[in-house]
Amino acid sequence: MKTEIISTGTELLLGQIFNTNTHYLGARLSDIGFDVVYHTTVGDNPERLENALYQALKRAELIVTTGGLGPTADDLTKELIAKVLGLEMILDNYSLERIKCYFASRKRKMPKSNEKQAYFPKGAKILPNNYGTAPGAIINKNDKIFVILPGPPFEMQPMFEDCVIAELKKITGPDSKTMKTRILKVFGMTESAIEEVLGELMNNVNPSIALLAKRTEIHIRLVASDVDEQAAEKSLNVAESMMRSRLGTKVFARDEETMVGIVGKALKSRGLKIATAESCTGGLIGVALTREAGSSEFYLGGVVSYANSVKEGLLGVKASTLQAVGAVSSEVAKEMASGILKRSGADIAVSVTGLAGPDGGSDLKPVGLVYIGFASAKGVEARKFQFYGGRDTIRQLSVTAALNWVRQYMLLS
Amino acid sequence: MKTEIISTGTELLLGQIFNTNTHYLGARLSDIGFDVVYHTTVGDNPERLENALYQALKRAELIVTTGGLGPTADDLTKELIAKVLGLEMILDNYSLERIKCYFASRKRKMPKSNEKQAYFPKGAKILPNNYGTAPGAIINKNDKIFVILPGPPFEMQPMFEDCVIAELKKITGPDSKTMKTRILKVFGMTESAIEEVLGELMNNVNPSIALLAKRTEIHIRLVASDVDEQAAEKSLNVAESMMRSRLGTKVFARDEETMVGIVGKALKSRGLKIATAESCTGGLIGVALTREAGSSEFYLGGVVSYANSVKEGLLGVKASTLQAVGAVSSEVAKEMASGILKRSGADIAVSVTGLAGPDGGSDLKPVGLVYIGFASAKGVEARKFQFYGGRDTIRQLSVTAALNWVRQYMLLS
Repeated sequence: MKTEIISTGTELLLGQIFNTNTHYLGARLSDIGFDVVYHTTVGDNPERLENALYQALKRAELIVTTGGLGPTADDLTKELIAKVLGLEMILDNYSLERIKCYFASRKRKMPKSNEKQAYFPKGAKILPNNYGTAPGAIINKNDKIFVILPGPPFEMQPMFEDCVIAELKKITGPDSKTMKTRILKVFGMTESAIEEVLGELMNNVNPSIALLAKRTEIHIRLVASDVDEQAAEKSLNVAESMMRSRLGTKVFARDEETMVGIVGKALKSRGLKIATAESCTGGLIGVALTREAGSSEFYLGGVVSYANSVKEGLLGVKASTLQAVGAVSSEVAKEMASGILKRSGADIAVSVTGLAGPDGGSDLKPVGLVYIGFASAKGVEARKFQFYGGRDTIRQLSVTAALNWVRQYMLLS
Repeated sequence: MKTEIISTGTELLLGQIFNTNTHYLGARLSDIGFDVVYHTTVGDNPERLENALYQALKRAELIVTTGGLGPTADDLTKELIAKVLGLEMILDNYSLERIKCYFASRKRKMPKSNEKQAYFPKGAKILPNNYGTAPGAIINKNDKIFVILPGPPFEMQPMFEDCVIAELKKITGPDSKTMKTRILKVFGMTESAIEEVLGELMNNVNPSIALLAKRTEIHIRLVASDVDEQAAEKSLNVAESMMRSRLGTKVFARDEETMVGIVGKALKSRGLKIATAESCTGGLIGVALTREAGSSEFYLGGVVSYANSVKEGLLGVKASTLQAVGAVSSEVAKEMASGILKRSGADIAVSVTGLAGPDGGSDLKPVGLVYIGFASAKGVEARKFQFYGGRDTIRQLSVTAALNWVRQYMLLS
């Protein structure tokens, strides 16, 4: 089904914020089998938005809009869609109540202007917004489908995942071909190494195979197209097991699973507690481990030992070690890991010390040199890594490498 | 001059790569006074690209395209622009020589297919590409200007900066209007509170004023349009000082400045060192403080005290306090801040303890309840906050509130 994504917002046109919505929707809509043919971005200008909607009606069957659902006078997406479809705007009392509740829960009275957010084109299916005041909507009229979504990504994305996908499936019906996507996530191999190992599998047609290089990992995307979900699922399973037999434990996760999710689950199921000692990552491993609720079941905490004085004072790293081999060294990584293991009472500890750059590198210790330490009751070890990229990339790679070590440890123990 | 940006590439439509080109061109073209009214993205499909070009001709005077200049059969941007303008394609021998040289410098022979990159619509001004094989072009015909740029950002951006700006100024002449944008960033006020305080200023026409709600802050966007940069700058300065006189220190930053940038600069200039003690934020303040290089000049490190045992063991929070009032309390926030101040030897310390949710809240201590502690040689204090939103939002708000306290402390000291 030909699909156009229309995003509204002057700040997008003027390049003041990144248009992550079209990126996200482009990927997700193609994942679930829609043929995305145009993205259009237009400012908060009624005449131009109306023009964009008319264009989209001519060239697409599914039109997904983001933005323009706010309470102010220049938020006109719903109103203009009603206009191009010849529908009147109707008050939805349930939505109005929800918006009032939203304000009440924040101890505020709903401003009069927010009432506007409870009006919808007649016949629209309303999509609740659990993270903001603007509900979305789906309209299915004259073989055209409009999906109307709010602009803020943290409101739009859950609405898309929780409501829109299911609603679209209801409308498009079961007789269309089903596409199913699977992502296998690989850490510690380059794209070309993966291509070499997968060999002739790379040319497979159904499921099709594509490699997507992410910042710290490579995703293998398998897309199967078949008569129904079960058949597509089955061919994905076959392809996945062929790939896993070649890539082994380099595949660390599948689909929505993440490195930190896998690590947290494994720690929880074994009843193990972890602690961290971070230098160049500044707390990123702690942040990753605590991103999801429930992390207190496996994460005790740690030390961000940015300065050497903190490495000594809070982790017990020896001044003589720092002087002899410097902070970015295998020895210091080991002393950091043992130090936090002992002082926190954890079962496992990881540490990171490295040069994230962009300055401060030398021939002997170039930017991207990172030592990761790992301590448990069995002893302490450190590994040396040489990462490439900007400061942020080097920090993220350090986090993933540290978590990957924890994962590998638990696979073997 | 009404401007449309058209980017081509199926990988953009499918969300496989970010569309940084429209973001970049949107910002730069508005900077130099063009009125960007649409972005359109279209795949490598001749019929749809042609349709997009016809649309753009109807609604814009300047049309800037990126991508579709490669050597393969589906790279058709120049050919289709020639078609919609009724121009023939002509070989440019100079470009052909340059492309041959490009390959020769890499010890390769030019493939026959690359010859295509040396053909241009008749009458085009050719723009050399110093970073790749595809030259760009500018065509000025019947009061419409086409700027044709390559897709890779590292080829497109230098071409835009080095050639396009000057060429556009030649065509549009010196009497065109210049637009300048300024962003004022506010923390600790709601949108409606800002609207109320700014009152009639909100209706100002030049500079125009708009509020943009970000996750943890509100941006006030001022856009001035005037005869030249100096005049626009001047009217922005006047509007900014009127706003600042009403909003006071709630305005924490301007344009590219960030909360953490402001805090880091202030600490550095005063020669102060900071340390952190984080519970629900899991290390996010440390991560924010160390995002930019050079943070070791003001950040010593800290403790992520997720478990109570770590609060006691590494920060010296008293077991009796934890038992009496619980971890999420003013007292514990204070003991965390004093603890890390003493143990790290820092001049200033901030601490965070709170309930980021989504579970674990109660009537007495609801999700979003956060205590922030602040310690210095002058003593220790804690403040209570009630934040709303998901886990991630509550954590980010906690970070910004903690950094904002440091900022305010330094404004007064």
